[in-house]
Amino acid sequence: MTSTSSRPDPGLHDLFARFSACGATQTGGVHRLCGSAADGLARDLFAATVAETGGTLRTDAVGNQFGLFSLAGRSDAPRVMLGSHLDSQPQGGRFDGTLGVATALRVGAALVGAKARGRAYDADLCVVNWTNEEGARFRPGLLGSGTYAGHHRAEDALASQDDAGVTLERALAAIGHRGTDTAPPLPACYLELHVEQGSVLTGGGATIGIVMRNWGATKIDAVFTGAQAHTGPCPMPLRRDALLAAAYAIAEVRAIADRWPGQVHTSVGRIRVEPNSANVVPSRVEISVEIRSGADPILAEAGALADGALKAAAGRARTNLSVLGRVERPVRALPGAVADLLALAAEETGYRAMPMDTVAGHDALSLLGACPTGLVFVPSIGGIAHDVAEETSDADMQAGLAVMLRSADRLCRAGGSPERAIREAAR
Amino acid sequence: MTSTSSRPDPGLHDLFARFSACGATQTGGVHRLCGSAADGLARDLFAATVAETGGTLRTDAVGNQFGLFSLAGRSDAPRVMLGSHLDSQPQGGRFDGTLGVATALRVGAALVGAKARGRAYDADLCVVNWTNEEGARFRPGLLGSGTYAGHHRAEDALASQDDAGVTLERALAAIGHRGTDTAPPLPACYLELHVEQGSVLTGGGATIGIVMRNWGATKIDAVFTGAQAHTGPCPMPLRRDALLAAAYAIAEVRAIADRWPGQVHTSVGRIRVEPNSANVVPSRVEISVEIRSGADPILAEAGALADGALKAAAGRARTNLSVLGRVERPVRALPGAVADLLALAAEETGYRAMPMDTVAGHDALSLLGACPTGLVFVPSIGGIAHDVAEETSDADMQAGLAVMLRSADRLCRAGGSPERAIREAAR
Repeated sequence: MTSTSSRPDPGLHDLFARFSACGATQTGGVHRLCGSAADGLARDLFAATVAETGGTLRTDAVGNQFGLFSLAGRSDAPRVMLGSHLDSQPQGGRFDGTLGVATALRVGAALVGAKARGRAYDADLCVVNWTNEEGARFRPGLLGSGTYAGHHRAEDALASQDDAGVTLERALAAIGHRGTDTAPPLPACYLELHVEQGSVLTGGGATIGIVMRNWGATKIDAVFTGAQAHTGPCPMPLRRDALLAAAYAIAEVRAIADRWPGQVHTSVGRIRVEPNSANVVPSRVEISVEIRSGADPILAEAGALADGALKAAAGRARTNLSVLGRVERPVRALPGAVADLLALAAEETGYRAMPMDTVAGHDALSLLGACPTGLVFVPSIGGIAHDVAEETSDADMQAGLAVMLRSADRLCRAGGSPERAIREAAR
Repeated sequence: MTSTSSRPDPGLHDLFARFSACGATQTGGVHRLCGSAADGLARDLFAATVAETGGTLRTDAVGNQFGLFSLAGRSDAPRVMLGSHLDSQPQGGRFDGTLGVATALRVGAALVGAKARGRAYDADLCVVNWTNEEGARFRPGLLGSGTYAGHHRAEDALASQDDAGVTLERALAAIGHRGTDTAPPLPACYLELHVEQGSVLTGGGATIGIVMRNWGATKIDAVFTGAQAHTGPCPMPLRRDALLAAAYAIAEVRAIADRWPGQVHTSVGRIRVEPNSANVVPSRVEISVEIRSGADPILAEAGALADGALKAAAGRARTNLSVLGRVERPVRALPGAVADLLALAAEETGYRAMPMDTVAGHDALSLLGACPTGLVFVPSIGGIAHDVAEETSDADMQAGLAVMLRSADRLCRAGGSPERAIREAAR
């Protein structure tokens, strides 16, 4: 039916192994923070692979890398975009983001090959590596895709600082990946493959997850300000201990999740303490709070409880509270037509698919609403994520590639329109 | 009666201002962590001042600086030692430690001058700057004086690492202050002047505090180990959150102080989180716990409660607990004869003195038990300590110098023996 093959592609494993070597840890994971030397190596490999495959590279002001593959043979052709991110969490896994980028690059190679063999396309392909998806070194996360989709101004994104005060702009410049190219316009359709980072697929006996909606998330960066004092002589009633305030808040944020078992996830993963010396009452403590839920009304209630918990914690420890940032991401549905096309591709390639939610944020959610957007999951062994032990089987990697290739091929033949692709598939 | 003057010494303010410039913050304090470039500048100034005053410098293996002033004119003369430390807390105050060192150097200059004018002494003077009193960059605190007094081996002290993995040995070598000299033998008597860091003197209407005993302290470095996971999809019951464990522990440690109001001080001033990213459940968190009390039985009970709180916190968050270090400092009395001599010196110089406890640790406590030891406090304005706003008035600085000078003069005339000095004063 199509001239693109669904046989296993050994090139995927080769390319993935080369990305995994960039910032590899001795424990089998990767430590590839956005804008680090290791990130620079992965970006160099992305650029080289685009060039080898006959594509053209563009790097925009915030370091997003776009590999453009001409398939339609005309300058005004619409574009289908596929991609994800190459940055990792500290001591993170090899698959998170990178599998989506490597898969998109292999799709690019396959479509370029099919075109060379005479297959006709009515859209071009763009493969993308988004900057700072993780939000580990620079905040907020989804920074590159969010800037591309118009949620942030490029100058604000570039001014984001890591904990050492280095800006994203300086970090990108230091590794030679602060671009000056204009980003390509919004695509006709955006597709992303990602590892699930949970255990729903395995539990459901499926290989392919088709994301129908995302959980909402409220992310709060809060600062408690107390007063530096000697931990010895300073009388307890006079202390204004910012770390104590943070401790009260962290415990209370956890308790919020227990009010809605299975429906609300909460966390504080990051803390920054000043002056952070054993003999000094901490004067300033910053924490990053996350609250997630699949139901907006619950998320709103849980978020209000978190606001109250932060205030109560500040008061109890005699500190001041200020909120540096608050990001709310509502529960949203992904477009049905894209999901239908992905389900069709799974069926055609012989993989069992199931509809599901994403609890985690992904670059696809940045583009949701800006263009038709699809998100595909493949299984994470044991549900392990954001850890060096993160793993996806070779067979599942190939399954993901097969579904993405079939979907992209159909979309590029149909001018990037998922509806037209489904109609043409029915013929 | 003595030929040493108790008129104000403008040299003290000049010297103190020069020390304050080493690592000065824009906010009026100092940031002079042990082994930093700023610490190197202060050490250089110490060495230059010793040389200018006619003393001889020795720097031992752990970087303790000893300025030897020959007063008795014979090679087997006993020694009186005066000093404190030049390292500071992060964003710390100018007076903590430094006032004691500057005062000791001015005492040295005065006694050398008196000798030149014909005054007879029966002991030499040694002025000391102890390495890493604060315990801010390298742990434990009191490291230099503790090594000198035989509580630590020099190789263990030098192997202590900061949070970036830099050893004390490397830090001292980098600033040119890792010495090779043999430390002088234990003195006949050790005196230290320090700022009070509390409000007891002001409350009691006194200028001079004569420390009669120290509060006991139990210091625990504990580590919670959980598992790195994605803060989104990972189900709450599966999480093993090391920061949550630390939060439970910090809150409980605070609650211990509330069981003995005014009698127990507790704190957690330092925390180290891995990987410390907003989207990752923390896998490893280290905290430094302190418990202090003026009563050993209460300290023992509070320490046992802290041990229990750490274990309970670890269990509640499904993490493992390990204790990296535990230091116990009992309540001890300082020698009465030294205190009597200090009280006499305060009376003779016209300053009102009061006996008191020290809640904070000081280098004098390292030497307590090894040789007769005295500790003198001058007022801290508002009781502020371990903060850039720390302050002591010019008049109180002069009061401290006058009492130290009078005491050191008497001791050096009496072969370093406080008992003999008191007897000779009564003649």
